[in-house]
Amino acid sequence: MRSAISPLFLSSIFASWALLRAADGGPQSLAGFATESTKAQLAVEQRFDAQLRADDQKEWMEQMASAPNHVGSPHDKVNAEFLLAKYKEWGWDARVEEFEVLYPTPKKTVVELVAPQKFAAKLQEPAVAGDRTSTQVADELPPYHAFAADGDVTAELVYVNQGMPDDYKELAQNGIDVKGRIVIVRYGGGWRGLKPKFAYEHGAVGCIIYSDPRDDGYGAGDAYPKGAFRPADGVQRGSVLDMPVYPGDPLTPDVGATKEAKRLAIKDARTILKIPVLPISHADALPLLAALDGEVVPEKWRGALPITYHFGPGPAKVHLSVQSEWTLKTARDVIAVMKGSEHPDEWVLRGNHFDGWVFGASDPLSGQVALMAEAKAIGALARDGWRPKRTLVYCSWDAEEPGLLGSTEWAEAHAAELQQKAVLYLNSDGNERGFLHASGSHALQTLVNQAADSVIDPQTKATVLKRQRAKLIVGATASDTSEEMKRIGKLVAAGGTPPLGALGAGSDYTAFIDHLGIASLNIGFGGEGDTGGVYHSAYDSFDHFTRFGDPGFAYGVALSQTAGRVMLRMANADVLPHMTDSFHETVAQYATELHKLADTMRENTEQMHRVLDEKLHALAADPTKTSRPPEREAAVPVLNFAPLDNALLRLKKSTRTFDDAMTTAQKTGLKFDAAKRTGINATLRALEQTLLDPAGLPGRDWFRHMIYAPGLKTGYGAKTLPGIREAIEDRRWQDAEKFSVAVANALGRYCDALDNAGAALKSRN
Amino acid sequence: MRSAISPLFLSSIFASWALLRAADGGPQSLAGFATESTKAQLAVEQRFDAQLRADDQKEWMEQMASAPNHVGSPHDKVNAEFLLAKYKEWGWDARVEEFEVLYPTPKKTVVELVAPQKFAAKLQEPAVAGDRTSTQVADELPPYHAFAADGDVTAELVYVNQGMPDDYKELAQNGIDVKGRIVIVRYGGGWRGLKPKFAYEHGAVGCIIYSDPRDDGYGAGDAYPKGAFRPADGVQRGSVLDMPVYPGDPLTPDVGATKEAKRLAIKDARTILKIPVLPISHADALPLLAALDGEVVPEKWRGALPITYHFGPGPAKVHLSVQSEWTLKTARDVIAVMKGSEHPDEWVLRGNHFDGWVFGASDPLSGQVALMAEAKAIGALARDGWRPKRTLVYCSWDAEEPGLLGSTEWAEAHAAELQQKAVLYLNSDGNERGFLHASGSHALQTLVNQAADSVIDPQTKATVLKRQRAKLIVGATASDTSEEMKRIGKLVAAGGTPPLGALGAGSDYTAFIDHLGIASLNIGFGGEGDTGGVYHSAYDSFDHFTRFGDPGFAYGVALSQTAGRVMLRMANADVLPHMTDSFHETVAQYATELHKLADTMRENTEQMHRVLDEKLHALAADPTKTSRPPEREAAVPVLNFAPLDNALLRLKKSTRTFDDAMTTAQKTGLKFDAAKRTGINATLRALEQTLLDPAGLPGRDWFRHMIYAPGLKTGYGAKTLPGIREAIEDRRWQDAEKFSVAVANALGRYCDALDNAGAALKSRN
Repeated sequence: MRSAISPLFLSSIFASWALLRAADGGPQSLAGFATESTKAQLAVEQRFDAQLRADDQKEWMEQMASAPNHVGSPHDKVNAEFLLAKYKEWGWDARVEEFEVLYPTPKKTVVELVAPQKFAAKLQEPAVAGDRTSTQVADELPPYHAFAADGDVTAELVYVNQGMPDDYKELAQNGIDVKGRIVIVRYGGGWRGLKPKFAYEHGAVGCIIYSDPRDDGYGAGDAYPKGAFRPADGVQRGSVLDMPVYPGDPLTPDVGATKEAKRLAIKDARTILKIPVLPISHADALPLLAALDGEVVPEKWRGALPITYHFGPGPAKVHLSVQSEWTLKTARDVIAVMKGSEHPDEWVLRGNHFDGWVFGASDPLSGQVALMAEAKAIGALARDGWRPKRTLVYCSWDAEEPGLLGSTEWAEAHAAELQQKAVLYLNSDGNERGFLHASGSHALQTLVNQAADSVIDPQTKATVLKRQRAKLIVGATASDTSEEMKRIGKLVAAGGTPPLGALGAGSDYTAFIDHLGIASLNIGFGGEGDTGGVYHSAYDSFDHFTRFGDPGFAYGVALSQTAGRVMLRMANADVLPHMTDSFHETVAQYATELHKLADTMRENTEQMHRVLDEKLHALAADPTKTSRPPEREAAVPVLNFAPLDNALLRLKKSTRTFDDAMTTAQKTGLKFDAAKRTGINATLRALEQTLLDPAGLPGRDWFRHMIYAPGLKTGYGAKTLPGIREAIEDRRWQDAEKFSVAVANALGRYCDALDNAGAALKSRN
Repeated sequence: MRSAISPLFLSSIFASWALLRAADGGPQSLAGFATESTKAQLAVEQRFDAQLRADDQKEWMEQMASAPNHVGSPHDKVNAEFLLAKYKEWGWDARVEEFEVLYPTPKKTVVELVAPQKFAAKLQEPAVAGDRTSTQVADELPPYHAFAADGDVTAELVYVNQGMPDDYKELAQNGIDVKGRIVIVRYGGGWRGLKPKFAYEHGAVGCIIYSDPRDDGYGAGDAYPKGAFRPADGVQRGSVLDMPVYPGDPLTPDVGATKEAKRLAIKDARTILKIPVLPISHADALPLLAALDGEVVPEKWRGALPITYHFGPGPAKVHLSVQSEWTLKTARDVIAVMKGSEHPDEWVLRGNHFDGWVFGASDPLSGQVALMAEAKAIGALARDGWRPKRTLVYCSWDAEEPGLLGSTEWAEAHAAELQQKAVLYLNSDGNERGFLHASGSHALQTLVNQAADSVIDPQTKATVLKRQRAKLIVGATASDTSEEMKRIGKLVAAGGTPPLGALGAGSDYTAFIDHLGIASLNIGFGGEGDTGGVYHSAYDSFDHFTRFGDPGFAYGVALSQTAGRVMLRMANADVLPHMTDSFHETVAQYATELHKLADTMRENTEQMHRVLDEKLHALAADPTKTSRPPEREAAVPVLNFAPLDNALLRLKKSTRTFDDAMTTAQKTGLKFDAAKRTGINATLRALEQTLLDPAGLPGRDWFRHMIYAPGLKTGYGAKTLPGIREAIEDRRWQDAEKFSVAVANALGRYCDALDNAGAALKSRN
């Protein structure tokens, strides 16, 4: 599903640029490879590249995007069978694994304005000139939100902006309560599923989410079909499953949703929404918003519709009705395996989903066809006798869109084996023209950057890494750039390499990293294609993608090259290519942010208390308007971060010692006996798992990673050091200190493992 | 004219809050007054307040705003005569002083789209339901820009956002040239007159300025008559005279435009625009902007019209024609004098203009009627036998709107006498519901704050000062507040009093402070009225003002009270109430900003040079779009600010010594003999003039003040330490260092005067 517009989710840190190259400009030695093996590896990659054809990707996308392919649709099944046949044709050991997942589909959807005048929302995306598949309206599901509650409500309407916590604070200060009312919410500012959840928590009985033209319609660029952006009737579908609690089938948390699995009753599933919610277009939203009165909303709440935006409540009154068919549907994951010649029990996994909301050309097929091209190329190498040293597992996931169902159920079903064998899960999703963005386990930053340094950007003929670096430096010179981007720009300009972002929960890596502690990466190109405007709509079509996404599939090939290198290097490395200084630098930066967060909150709270104590708020407010003082929040004590800070002191030492040992060992050829190598690799394979805490995060023990998690109140977006950070944000001081200890313990286990591996690397034999 | 929305133009600094009050909460001693005289003064102010009637102001406004009152209109003359009669009725020695000023009025105005389809702009503001004067369309001048050139041009259209220097940089990077084209510009971001000036400098042959609904139309609030904001056909008129070069009659710089004055030929007047320009409504702008194509503009360029904003150029082609009658018109300043009983040759001046663009209810009559109420109240005191110690001069200015003509010509005509006698010029302009904002000579900050501390806010019943303080503290807690507002909020919260802003050139104080070096202040209430949306339009009417500006004229009375206190205290003070620490703090803050400005520019330039040297720009740009690298700008050397910094060291010492002497003298009753007191007051009266440099600022020697000036590239907005600041911004390094010396010399003269006055205060007799 990935977020509509993929910024470079950058976090922090830096391997030295110089580390990537030898003095002559060529790669010195690939991380994890001795000089000899580097040469062999580069030769394999050349042969791999030679197999990649842009036209393959184009042909597969046209075929797979030719009909609606949501979970349970006839064409979704056709695509699974197509994938299975292709993997087999290319020489892989492929199978379909089926799961029976709860996936409600709409039977009836209604949005009507009933006062002060009548208006019935269209709730359909009509055919658009020049977009061939857009005529298949009858075969599509109507626009809806998966896992909305059934309901039929009529109530006054309130506009709540993006429906995030700060918006409800603003409403409260304006004396507006959403209790018993229906809220209309603008897309953006946080994950979709949180909007109806927060609305419910504030007492709303229904929720309507619309796409404001300011964000992805004519306000952002010319509307489709003239340009790429969302037309007046375009709707963003999507899941509202409460994935930050746990993703996957809501009836089978922690276990695979096999036919036999024990299931919760629907009413007991915590992740299913409690109120009805529907997505609508801006053409349907306009009469609703125009019928609101009350005070004018603050400037940042205003969109690009030609009206004055008001809070309401009323006089607009709305009838909202949603009825779904709550049955189990079959999700078909297509799994293809190529057994490793030397380490068959070390698995390198690659995944991308293939189910879409409608035709799903950009999301997810643009990524799926790049993955297929890799599988085809590897198959060709295998036909010529080549074999990976470790086992490759290619996964085409079904049922990602409703809530990461396909990948999560598979990961849960194979949890023990995965924790035993997996060395990497590499994910992609939508892909388009532009710059490489990469997020994930920070000890793999050097691996990613070395791959990016050996792929040529199809437009500029510079390496992908160079282009990424240029973008970061130039971006930092913009007058309106953030402090964070300035910091990164300066570091990159000073010789650092682009940092990996932190993983949130926008795609299929979630179960692997957050639940199982498997080192994971998510990569893709973007920033120059314009598919964001048709995100999750029927206009995300082959015709749209080939005009605006990646017309010649050159970036599809670039993704295959980049992902292929990561996969093949991980498969063939003499020693698993972890370079851990990046991890230390990143976590240290997160800790710095937490110190700052607590200090800033303390200062702001003190100021707010002064305002309340001296009743300054009433003096500063316009007495002709309703204005309630902000709620009094607890003062922020000085928190004990000493366990965290001390753990970082050790981490700095352990990571440097390990990286030095790795570098030295590489220079001398990584010549260990098999048992020793196996030992070192076993330690590194399990490294990420040291960061799991079996108790998990508060209220969501499915999420066990102590460094990264999706934000409970932000959704897709990552929260780093989430146990501490969310505790501070929620003013749970005891939890903040408790998780400072939990993170310290996790880092301690990480250091123990590193120290072992480092010692092994040093002791020659 | 004042800028449409008057933020608190805050600069910096702080007298102690405690200094204003005695321990019991009452005023300890008014600045410049001994304890005895304080009591007498407060008694006079009570009698003054008792004379103020909101209904007077309402009645006068209704009368004066009943017909169009632009310069040269019949009703403008009627208003001058009405004012003269009133001043006389109230016992003032009043007269009209006439000046013959160049004031072009439109004979023909045309804006037409001629391709790709035809559209003729309406260029009129039709009657609006419930707004009684809006029916007088026939008596109004059509919307136009005073001092636009005559011209008739047809050319391709280009959208240039707000038409400021950064916008032209953006156009250049997009490969777009305005040469030979007509530009369409959005209001905002800088003074209106700069927009056609910069367009001309970039080769445009015509300019159209429109009001985007995002800024003051339906995007900002409900349109008139439902709400206060600019309706679809509303137009913002205004002057485009190049006032930052010199304001006033363009034909008589430096001298009064009396009948006999020697005049320049129109072609030789530097301040008259060289190309035609017209203002239009957003209803007229929509078809023009919708007909543009080319790349989509950057996000911050986009307005609230329901279109995708494009740069052009073309295919829109526009015909623009302006023809004016270039004749002299009579400006009638009404001057009323009440001679001082003790120091008749020390003048305290008060001014507000009375000419409007159409009916001018908010701008300027809301301020004018407050001034009239003061004159009436003072007249009543005089009838009862009271007399000010110094001479009061009340000035109702004509011809402010076209370019500060009335006040500037009068100040130039009386320059020598004013520099000899004036102790203060206190200005106001439009006024509405809200918070006090005050700008001006920083040594008078205590005077202003003490006045604000003794006036009760009509809505909250707190003092005006307390409310202002609350606003600053609460405003600083907003998440999106600026660093500067945060700094001020913290200082005020810590006990400082609200700082005065710096004066730019938005109203009639300009000649007094910038040209003659007379201590000046500009005050008014605002921030809660909603007259900004009808700024300079026919809908700035009595009906609008009494719904949205200041319905009960309570803030008109508050302005009379505040201004009356400043005037009466300045008139009766034993010693002129300069407290100079505020001045030092302010200038020191300006100097800190300059250091930072140079450092930031140096760093940014270095980054930009790296981008250019390594050709990173091309790598970061989308190759499918035109994208030129930014121009290479000169590196920023380390500048010698030592003269300025050393002058500040002395200023700190001199101001503290003087303020201490003043405080001590006040405690002991300010008992000097007459000659000594006269000597001290003479020094303080001339204090501001020490800050003038006769050589003036580069390219505009009319502006002689070394601390404050309107920005040559920002217009209304103040540039502080302008000789240095604008030199840095323009990369004129020699000028920056030259003016560092000039400012240091000015501050040296200021210190000399202060040291003299301080020594005199200390030597008892």
